[in-house]
Parts: sequence; structure tokens; C-alpha cells
Amino acid sequence: MPYQFEPGRIYRMPTHFGPAPGPRQIPAEANVDTTRSPRKTLISSSFLTEAAALERHIPERFALVGDPVVTVEFHYMTDIDWLAGRGYTMIHVWWPVMFKGQRDQVVGRFLAVMWENLADPIITGRGEIGQPKLYAEIPELRAVGASYHCEASWMGFRFLDVRVTELAASTNESRSEPPMQGTLMLKYVPRTGAWGDADICQVSFTPALTPDLTVESRKAAAGSVIFHRAAWRDLPTMYHVVNALADLPVLSSCGGLIATTRGGKSYRDQQILT
Amino acid sequence: MPYQFEPGRIYRMPTHFGPAPGPRQIPAEANVDTTRSPRKTLISSSFLTEAAALERHIPERFALVGDPVVTVEFHYMTDIDWLAGRGYTMIHVWWPVMFKGQRDQVVGRFLAVMWENLADPIITGRGEIGQPKLYAEIPELRAVGASYHCEASWMGFRFLDVRVTELAASTNESRSEPPMQGTLMLKYVPRTGAWGDADICQVSFTPALTPDLTVESRKAAAGSVIFHRAAWRDLPTMYHVVNALADLPVLSSCGGLIATTRGGKSYRDQQILT
Amino acid sequence: MPYQFEPGRIYRMPTHFGPAPGPRQIPAEANVDTTRSPRKTLISSSFLTEAAALERHIPERFALVGDPVVTVEFHYMTDIDWLAGRGYTMIHVWWPVMFKGQRDQVVGRFLAVMWENLADPIITGRGEIGQPKLYAEIPELRAVGASYHCEASWMGFRFLDVRVTELAASTNESRSEPPMQGTLMLKYVPRTGAWGDADICQVSFTPALTPDLTVESRKAAAGSVIFHRAAWRDLPTMYHVVNALADLPVLSSCGGLIATTRGGKSYRDQQILT
Amino acid sequence: MPYQFEPGRIYRMPTHFGPAPGPRQIPAEANVDTTRSPRKTLISSSFLTEAAALERHIPERFALVGDPVVTVEFHYMTDIDWLAGRGYTMIHVWWPVMFKGQRDQVVGRFLAVMWENLADPIITGRGEIGQPKLYAEIPELRAVGASYHCEASWMGFRFLDVRVTELAASTNESRSEPPMQGTLMLKYVPRTGAWGDADICQVSFTPALTPDLTVESRKAAAGSVIFHRAAWRDLPTMYHVVNALADLPVLSSCGGLIATTRGGKSYRDQQILT
Repeated sequence: MPYQFEPGRIYRMPTHFGPAPGPRQIPAEANVDTTRSPRKTLISSSFLTEAAALERHIPERFALVGDPVVTVEFHYMTDIDWLAGRGYTMIHVWWPVMFKGQRDQVVGRFLAVMWENLADPIITGRGEIGQPKLYAEIPELRAVGASYHCEASWMGFRFLDVRVTELAASTNESRSEPPMQGTLMLKYVPRTGAWGDADICQVSFTPALTPDLTVESRKAAAGSVIFHRAAWRDLPTMYHVVNALADLPVLSSCGGLIATTRGGKSYRDQQILT
Repeated sequence: MPYQFEPGRIYRMPTHFGPAPGPRQIPAEANVDTTRSPRKTLISSSFLTEAAALERHIPERFALVGDPVVTVEFHYMTDIDWLAGRGYTMIHVWWPVMFKGQRDQVVGRFLAVMWENLADPIITGRGEIGQPKLYAEIPELRAVGASYHCEASWMGFRFLDVRVTELAASTNESRSEPPMQGTLMLKYVPRTGAWGDADICQVSFTPALTPDLTVESRKAAAGSVIFHRAAWRDLPTMYHVVNALADLPVLSSCGGLIATTRGGKSYRDQQILT
Repeated sequence: MPYQFEPGRIYRMPTHFGPAPGPRQIPAEANVDTTRSPRKTLISSSFLTEAAALERHIPERFALVGDPVVTVEFHYMTDIDWLAGRGYTMIHVWWPVMFKGQRDQVVGRFLAVMWENLADPIITGRGEIGQPKLYAEIPELRAVGASYHCEASWMGFRFLDVRVTELAASTNESRSEPPMQGTLMLKYVPRTGAWGDADICQVSFTPALTPDLTVESRKAAAGSVIFHRAAWRDLPTMYHVVNALADLPVLSSCGGLIATTRGGKSYRDQQILT
Repeated sequence: MPYQFEPGRIYRMPTHFGPAPGPRQIPAEANVDTTRSPRKTLISSSFLTEAAALERHIPERFALVGDPVVTVEFHYMTDIDWLAGRGYTMIHVWWPVMFKGQRDQVVGRFLAVMWENLADPIITGRGEIGQPKLYAEIPELRAVGASYHCEASWMGFRFLDVRVTELAASTNESRSEPPMQGTLMLKYVPRTGAWGDADICQVSFTPALTPDLTVESRKAAAGSVIFHRAAWRDLPTMYHVVNALADLPVLSSCGGLIATTRGGKSYRDQQILT
């Protein structure tokens, strides 16, 4: 007898061996405590660019809000519950937008692209959440005194360098930043055989609320972001992504952040907006 | 102005930076020659199991055909056109089935699970084709004289060992094997927010025809396949897959194969069956 | 004109390009601060074994002292000055001994073997210090609540698992431990061409004094150590090492330690004893 | 009882667990056949530089002979007997020299630096042979049609690119190349504690004779070599090596080679010259 899907359980390819363990479906033996897991070191750096340049990279029904500021974040994570205590690193690239759908209207972070150095969360995040995750080699954070260096490569081609340095006195951030309701992304899956069509093209939304998150330390920083232009042969699956980001004019640096946090959530609160 | 999708072009997440280069959309500068790319060393080993055990791992509308023989293949590939000459390794696990849909009826290889040691083809294969690809560390093929050892791990946990040894004289394979029309798989993408529902659940089919493939050498072999049972903490995203395969009774070994090939295809001929 | 060696400068193979930057010869631009670098998470676990079994693995002029307790330590390091802020992980395996030379007599930790997951400190440590360093894949520390899991592999073969769990109340350690003056090792380099002879066979000593080391946290723990026996084909360059350690009887566990520290030293105080 | 060294057996640090298995001491179960192991793809490219620039990087008692031509070779190896059938990749950088010692006079390849992507042969080669081996990440050979691309990185910093393209017709190589008796290198081990002194500083020599080597294919090629200059923070243990090579003027390209070979030797014939 062929198998039946169990109702209410999350599956992923391959579905033939039962419901899939993962961030939103963790076995009881994991003793999940979302106030403790994960531990994270967050390095962030932002820059002001031209609105017209940024607008070319947002989908229909989206509009820029506030200043056209691009933020690049490195999330160095350990103690991850659904990975049985292992860690990995995420990169987020986002800017502020408003989504105006037929029903929903949301101001949030437009998550334009992510990179991660582990395939498993790429698979779960793309399929279950719609996060635009790609793979990169991301070495451990480098720290020399109060300076930090974050980098990302693919098969030996370095495409991203972020450097931040702690500021002695915290500065007043006067930049106009609209209140963010959460994070917005476009879940997209192409249609097999009908090349150019899509089976899924949905606006996916992560509400900002994360009650179990504790910020343990937080320091303002000066920072820089450099994307390195690539040829096709350097990054044959994503040179177009890196080059588009490298081509954004850097009008000024908008400072950065070094933070350590503990706790998180499973993203079971993810929603499709319409 | 937000961007528009260009008609007829393949996109993947993130879609915001233009059509996505990949196996089915290679820039002209690649000078693709599908009679030369990729080069492949194929190691294969099969075993007879119990039909009842195997049947639990096929979806509805599928039925076993012929002997319940599980085949595990390692495809060590180099000179891959869409990766600008780089290589990676694929593992296929399949058994013979018939699919009976409303319109289509096909006898083929049921591709139950794949592992690959590079995230990029996992992303393209899952999204564009529906291949059930997971990530594994797969070291280079080990060869000592006429014996070969293939292995796969995840974060240091070895879950698969395949060993084959060339046979001096080629044996007559008398096993009944139905003629295969191609390869069958289930493309599945969960519905975000509606946990347990699916946005995509389709039978995806690769026709067998690959006119540009040249088999350069082919030797019969004796072989063995061992899947190692894992705890959740060993393989937190796929212990259920590995354990299901480890639990299949090995009634007898059905021999193996060592082959080298050149050439391939883009899988633009992939179809959804109904 | 061929080059001349500059007096007083440390060289390593290849010597032809000038003095070699490294832990004991760091360029001025590094702004070394040994009170800050490195940061370290130390996980340690010990077990009581049989003196007779341990004695087979100490060289001449050495004798066991105190209880025959083997300690296995994982040093997860970041912010390393001589690596421009990068990190790597060391494993130490040691037991207490006395060295009685013609001139020197020292009680210390006998550093029987080390593993590291980066080749550069293996090269510098073996050549400059005489540390018995081998290579292993050592993933990030896994932490689930108050439990920690450390592991080491080589080409996918896991040969060492250490697990420790924090103890609620710190216990009184009553074990007799002689005061340690430092760490002892045998620097050995074979003679090229005269196979079986040695060019260097010296007792090398690291004095315990490390004034710039700050222990930031320290917790007692219960722990276990498991070395996994290997075949030659699993660990073709070091199965003899791992098997010798796996064959040591574990009479009882002697507890462990979880500590975080900051600061260190360059080992320029390393000495040859005679 | 402490252990005794067994006479006539090769030891390496740590010596405490018995003689060390390795390239020159392989267990009988390996069934060594030096006519079959290893299999190698060799990519080589050479360039003419200035004699004065090259001379700065040869030790005393050495002199340049013939044209000052630097050759960079990538040896992609599989089926290695002493690694139980595994593989790894070597890079050789050499130029022609004469060594004039008190007793010995030899014309040979001066092996200025090597890189390898596996720590084990680095350890055995440096200690037993005196090969100037450093570690690099060296991905698989990239091949697109008749063009090959070889590269080497360290922690994401690409420091070497070699590109070669097969030539349709083999050219007459008219360059004056003195007959090579073998390969010359300087075995050097610093003296612990007496920083700046050496315990070993010997000229080590590999005779050219390798009777079990079979050249299976060999094609002439056009090629290029690029070393990329590095800052200390990019390559903190070897920027001086890479920069010295990057600073050699490239007067002209001297062509290259693509070859496949089978068989080799253990280097038990290695000698110290005086």
C-alpha cells in the first residue's frame, strides 16, 4: 500500500519517508526552549543609496518607504535547537518597503536576498517560508580588538566584505526610519516544464513579534559594505544578484551595529499576504 | 518603478535581480556542448528487498513493477557546463515503479531521494525539476585497484557506504527488469502558514532519451550498500529518510556497475504528469 | 646573489621568501594585545585509567605521577591575533608525568597528542614548539541547554566524542593532583634518507605561567570521553594513535570543566629540557 | 615501563603510539602497486622572469642554470595507496638550479614552495622529506572544452590562478633546458627556544628516476600564471611567499602542459646532499 500524508504535519521533498523534522517540527527529545536557542552574534552595516536604483529590485505592489537604506546583516548562530545544538551563519540584505495588497498593507523590511553556509536551512527556509536563501561559504567572524570583519565567498570567490568598528560613545541615530511591522519576501517557485511560468508567486510575511528574544549586548558601530562584481564563471548561479548589489551607489555609510542575543522563534507565525 | 518578470525566462528566489542563470538557462559565453559536458564516473550497486517494505515509501497512484530492487548510484561529475567547468557529486536512490495518472501511464525509475554535495544544484533541482535533493558531504571516490568505495556523511556522521569491485568476466544479468521510460519523482512544496497543506504536489517526469550521452566504459561489479541508522541528534533534518532506507531488508545483492560517461542534457524536457 | 638568513628572525619552510610571520613573529600592524587574544571556550573531560596501560605511551626519562588520569580538552578559539582575528579549534590529550633529565626535573602535563582543524598552526606548532599536532575536522561546539558535545573526525570518520554537562553545585575535587609546572612534549623530526633515525628528539617544555590569561567563567561538569577504534583504511595516517587511546581502560570518569577565557601568550618562553 | 623506539621504523610526532603509517611505511593490507597508484592529472604553466629577481630566492650554494623560467604545476591525484585510495592535490613551484656542495653537485628543479589541500601529506612531507609544503584550499580542476582553470585560496582569499588551453599542434620547444637530475629543496626546522637558530638546515634531493610512472596522455598548451598580492590580514602566515612570487616580472609565457599519469614512488630514495 502506498503511503498517505498525515494531516497537519509538515512534509518536504522527499515526502516518502514521513513528516520532515525541521525548525517548525522538532522532535520532543529536543526539549526546545525558545528563550535560550539560538545564541547569536549580529553584525550589521547600512548604507544610503539612490531610490531609483533600489526600486528596480522590488516587485509589483511594493514601494520604498523612508530613506533608501540598504542593510547587510551577518547572524552568527550557535546552540540551534532544531540542529541539535549546532550552528550556522545567515546573511540578510534588506531595505524598508510598504506592501499594498488587495487585503493587506504592511510596512516592513524587504528581505531581498539571504545567504547561508548550510544547505539544510536553505531547503527548509525556501520551501516552508519563502526566504530567498542562497548558499555561501561564510567563515567565522574575525575580531581584532573592537573591529570586526565579515565575509562571504562561493567556491573561493569572495563577493562580500563587511567591516564594522565599535563606537566609543553611542550616537544619536536621527535617520527617519518608519516603524517596521515585520519582514516581507516573495515566495516564488517556477513551474516545471512550462519554463517562465510560476507555480507559486506569493508575498510571505514574518511578523516582528519575537517575545522570547533577549538582547544581551548592543553597541553602535561605524561600518562599510563592499560587494565585489563577479563574472559568470566566478559565480555561475548568482553573479546577477551580486552584481546588482555591487552596482547600487553608496551615497553614504549609515552606521552599524554589533549585538549578541539569545532566543528566537520557529517562524510558525509566517503568513501569506494578499 | 518595480520590476516586471520577463516572459519566457526562468526565475528563482530571489527573483528581484533578473532571470536566474542555471542548468536550463546558461549564458551564451559558456559555449555549451552537451556532447562533452559533464564527464561522469558512475558507481552503482543494487539489492533485492521485500516488496511490502518498499511499497510503504511510494505515493498514491504509484505501484511497484518488476522485482523490488533498490539501486544506489554515485555520480561523480566534472566539467559541468553550467558551473563553468566545476564538478560535484550526486547520489540517486531509486526503484522500478509504474505511475497511473488520469492521463499518463509511465513505467520508470522512482527517484526516492537524492543527495548532493553542492547547494546550488539542490536549489535549482528542487525548484525547477522537483528532484528530492538533500545535502551530504560526499568525498572523492576512493579507488584501490579494482575496488571502489563511495560514502556520504552529514556534519561528520557517515550514513551511507557503497563498495563495489569490478568483475573479471561480465555476468549475464538475468533479472527481470521492465523497460524504463524515464525517471519519476514527486515535486512537493508546502504551503506557508497553512502547515500540513501543500502548494505543489505533482508527479514530475524525466524522459529517458539523452541522445548526447556517450558511455565511454562500463564494467559489471559486485557490490554492497549500507545505510547506517541515525539518531535525531546525528541527522536532525533527515534521520527519518536514512533510517527508513536502513530498515529495508537486504535479501540479496544484485550486483553493480562502474561506468564513465560524457555528455548529458539540461532537463528542459522535464514534464508534469497528470 | 642567493639570500642570507637574517639573524634573530624565525624561519620556516619555505625559507626562501624571508622570515615567516606566525604566532611568535607577528607584524606590527596586528597591534597585538595578549590580554584580549585569543578568546576561548574550553571543554574538558577526564577519566581514570590503568597506570600500566598509560606507561606504554610515555618516552624514556618520563614517569607517571599522581593518579593515571587522562584529560581530553577542546579549545574553541576566536579572535586570534596572529591569524588577523580568525579562529580555530585545538584538542589536547594529556596526563601527569615527571621528566627527569640530566639537568632538568619537571612535573607537568604530558601532551601526548593534539589535533587541530587548521593546517597553519599545525605547521608552526610542530616545527617551532614540538607540539604533537595532527589534523582533524572539528565542528563547532554543540550546545543544548547545559550539555555540550565535542567531536572530531577525519575524512568523515568520527574518532572522538566528548560530552559534558554542567553540574548544578560545584563538587569538591578530592583527587590527588600534583602541582604542574607546565606542559611537556617530545619534539621529534625523522632523518631524511636514514629511515628510522632522528634528526631531532628533544624534550620541549611550556612553562605554566601565562600572566595575561583571564578566566571569565568556569563551571564543573560531568563528562564522558569516547575514542572510536579505526581500521587502517579509516584513518590511514593515525589509526595507531586513535586505537591506542581507545584501548585505554576507562576505570571511572573524573569529571570535566566548561570555561571561557580571554588572553594568552606566544609560547616564546618555550624551552628545550635536557 | 616507558616505550622504546623500534629500530629501522619511521616515527613522527606523536611518537608515543608506535611507528607512523604513511607514504613510506604502508601496512601490508594496502597491497601497494606503485605502477597503479596514484593516478594524476597534471596541469603545468611556465613563464620567463628576470634572473636577478629569481636569484634573491635561492639559498647559498645554489645558482640558477639555463633560462630563469618559473614553472607552476597542479597535480590532481586520486587512488593514492597510502591514503587507502583517497586523493588530494599538490602545487609545485620550481625553477632550474645547480647545487654545489662540498661533496655533491647536482642540476635539478629547485622546489621553492608547495601547497597541498590535505594536512596529512604536509606533515609527512615536511618532516620526512623536507618538502616546503603549505596548506591551501584547492578546488577540483575546472575544465571547459580544451581550457583548464586551476586555483588556490586560503580562507577565502584566492592567491593563485593558472589557466591553460590545449594547443592543436604540438609546438617545438626550443628553450634551452639543462638535463635535470632530480628535485632539490631545503629542509629547515627552527630550534625551539633559540629563536632564529636552526636545528635542521639541509639540502634534500629527490632523484628523477621513477620507473613505475606511466604517462598516459600529454598535450602541449598555452598558459598563464597569476599570483595575487595579499595583505597580512589576507594570508597572515604566508603573504610574504605569495607576494614574492607575485613580484616576479613575467617577461613572457613559456607554455604549459596537460598530462595524465599513473604510478609513482614512495620517495624512500630521498637523500641529503652535502
